[in-house]
Amino acid sequence: MIYLTRRERFNAAHRLYNPEWDDAKNLRIYGKCSNPNWHGHNYELFVTVKGEVKDKTGYVINLKSLSKLIKEKIVEEIDHKNINIEVPFMKDRIASTENLAKAIWEILNGPVSELGAELHCIKIVETENNFVEYYG
Amino acid sequence: MIYLTRRERFNAAHRLYNPEWDDAKNLRIYGKCSNPNWHGHNYELFVTVKGEVKDKTGYVINLKSLSKLIKEKIVEEIDHKNINIEVPFMKDRIASTENLAKAIWEILNGPVSELGAELHCIKIVETENNFVEYYG
Amino acid sequence: MIYLTRRERFNAAHRLYNPEWDDAKNLRIYGKCSNPNWHGHNYELFVTVKGEVKDKTGYVINLKSLSKLIKEKIVEEIDHKNINIEVPFMKDRIASTENLAKAIWEILNGPVSELGAELHCIKIVETENNFVEYYG
Amino acid sequence: MIYLTRRERFNAAHRLYNPEWDDAKNLRIYGKCSNPNWHGHNYELFVTVKGEVKDKTGYVINLKSLSKLIKEKIVEEIDHKNINIEVPFMKDRIASTENLAKAIWEILNGPVSELGAELHCIKIVETENNFVEYYG
Amino acid sequence: MIYLTRRERFNAAHRLYNPEWDDAKNLRIYGKCSNPNWHGHNYELFVTVKGEVKDKTGYVINLKSLSKLIKEKIVEEIDHKNINIEVPFMKDRIASTENLAKAIWEILNGPVSELGAELHCIKIVETENNFVEYYG
Amino acid sequence: MIYLTRRERFNAAHRLYNPEWDDAKNLRIYGKCSNPNWHGHNYELFVTVKGEVKDKTGYVINLKSLSKLIKEKIVEEIDHKNINIEVPFMKDRIASTENLAKAIWEILNGPVSELGAELHCIKIVETENNFVEYYG
Repeated sequence: MIYLTRRERFNAAHRLYNPEWDDAKNLRIYGKCSNPNWHGHNYELFVTVKGEVKDKTGYVINLKSLSKLIKEKIVEEIDHKNINIEVPFMKDRIASTENLAKAIWEILNGPVSELGAELHCIKIVETENNFVEYYG
Repeated sequence: MIYLTRRERFNAAHRLYNPEWDDAKNLRIYGKCSNPNWHGHNYELFVTVKGEVKDKTGYVINLKSLSKLIKEKIVEEIDHKNINIEVPFMKDRIASTENLAKAIWEILNGPVSELGAELHCIKIVETENNFVEYYG
Repeated sequence: MIYLTRRERFNAAHRLYNPEWDDAKNLRIYGKCSNPNWHGHNYELFVTVKGEVKDKTGYVINLKSLSKLIKEKIVEEIDHKNINIEVPFMKDRIASTENLAKAIWEILNGPVSELGAELHCIKIVETENNFVEYYG
Repeated sequence: MIYLTRRERFNAAHRLYNPEWDDAKNLRIYGKCSNPNWHGHNYELFVTVKGEVKDKTGYVINLKSLSKLIKEKIVEEIDHKNINIEVPFMKDRIASTENLAKAIWEILNGPVSELGAELHCIKIVETENNFVEYYG
Repeated sequence: MIYLTRRERFNAAHRLYNPEWDDAKNLRIYGKCSNPNWHGHNYELFVTVKGEVKDKTGYVINLKSLSKLIKEKIVEEIDHKNINIEVPFMKDRIASTENLAKAIWEILNGPVSELGAELHCIKIVETENNFVEYYG
Repeated sequence: MIYLTRRERFNAAHRLYNPEWDDAKNLRIYGKCSNPNWHGHNYELFVTVKGEVKDKTGYVINLKSLSKLIKEKIVEEIDHKNINIEVPFMKDRIASTENLAKAIWEILNGPVSELGAELHCIKIVETENNFVEYYG
């Protein structure tokens, strides 16, 4: 079993905001991350898949196919967008990095199987000082 | 003469937008960077000052004073903010990295002199693939 | 289950030294890392916690609380200090990165539970070429 | 149990090429990675070993011994070489990063045991956007 | 005057080799960098241009145009290639990083002017430990 | 004229301390950087030289000679040492990064000329957030 990781990047705006709370409570819980006028990040997305190395190719799966999949399903939907109001797969979810990782897992899990590997981990680096990992 | 550089960071939302143009023209010129719902970045700001090394301290200037100055004048005004609509020193300026560098120069130039050094360069890294430098 | 990681940094002096041995033996075992006049590092500390994402917040735990905890319990005790002679939690331990990771685990394990998550990993990067990880 | 990681680096040329296929098929499967005139990379190799911390030394194993082992067994064989035609441990294997990780595992597994630890992971970073990990 | 830098990357094989010398002398001068079977690198190319910020756009020049120019003129010619035998602009030049920087300057200097800026610097990072800069 | 840069690294202990002042004044001026029990850093040293590219070699100067020079004159003197009390070229100088850059310039300036190039810049990175540059 080999683990293969591809990094893709996207830049997006967001705010941490629970619609069940008023702005005052959101600011109390989330601080400046809940600024109603948004802020944003350069996100790094690391997608790790696992599988046997194929004798014929020396590959777990073709890295270009994996990159293409991530770009089509994730990057095109979220890059240079507002995560709270424009990204279909984040609809009705609080725009935290944790929820982003879970949503991306749900989208990529099936298609990665169709490529012939198993999704292992979604890692999202929000700043140089914090990141999350989700293993399904 | 020694050149001393301090890095500070801020996360912000913005869009490239010239208010003299309609949205269609803005999108034609700026592409996805003009998304009306904003996007954002992890910005890195490098402030370089120059001066003689003081015999008594071995310093050009105290790095903590420089860091404090940058945080008070710049980071507190722009971190977790929307550059287009919330940042006083970017009012009436297109929210490009180039204009950001020039605006930050104008703000820091005087105070750096008061610290006993000369402002040399404002460098802003917007993504791992692009940055600007301004020397006044 | 989501894994959330926070990075903090500290700069410290140390030497590798077993007090049961004389200087000659320490130098034979540890080489220049046992220099009696000390050397030092920019340490990077990565603290990974795990837990369920809370529906209300979208968080495992509040990253600011985690950062504050690490700063209070670890960084304030060790930053700009001599690990061998000034850091309470390293008393009577050889000042290796391995022992540092274990000591930091012992300190953070309880308080991370009180924040509502489980401590998963302490990773310490000593140089760009070596790091250790401890999972309890 | 502590996990200790050492990074070493090497620069090498390679091409992805299955000798059972003609050049046309190799190009169809591998794209530009199969260029008959080769291309190359700055590879980063991360070797992770695990073991108990020894009371006497505070070490899992001596990092210098681990570094020396990796340099002798791996770096001297592959650095500034052509992976397809000059590296004994890659003979008759497709020169993919996956196969490289597996071959390096096979070589280091025994000698790491002799140093008193257990080999845990071989990670190879081929570019800033892709890497593989092998756990045996 | 603002300085704007764009980074692009390419992976290539090369050897340091002066055809006026035999292999023995090439090996004596260049060491392992002259391996007849090639080695390779992940090259990072930083192109810096300078110019006035345009009032209408807030840009020196459009970064996407600069990126497209570098990709068309340089990256497509050299990425996943053998610098010594396949790259037209390196024909009859020793495949050193220094010569690479000069050749890239010659190619980009005119087209950057046509974009409305002035070429300022070509920087090429060959490994994390060495890079060259050329200012024309 | 081409500018060639080599990076070397060293780990060292130091404190900021002016022997003309008592400990109280040193602490008031330098803060925790003056801790009498020392602290330390992973220093990165970038040495930039300039010169014409030689037709025969494609080199400004041989990078291996430059690396060897820096290691012999600087790294062997300061790596895993205490800058204040063990490094001959820092004797009677306050152990600031500024003074370190100037001292290294003085040592390397002559020998770089003998290698056939001109010393251009000494850059020292003390932490990811601060560095100095000295141009003679």
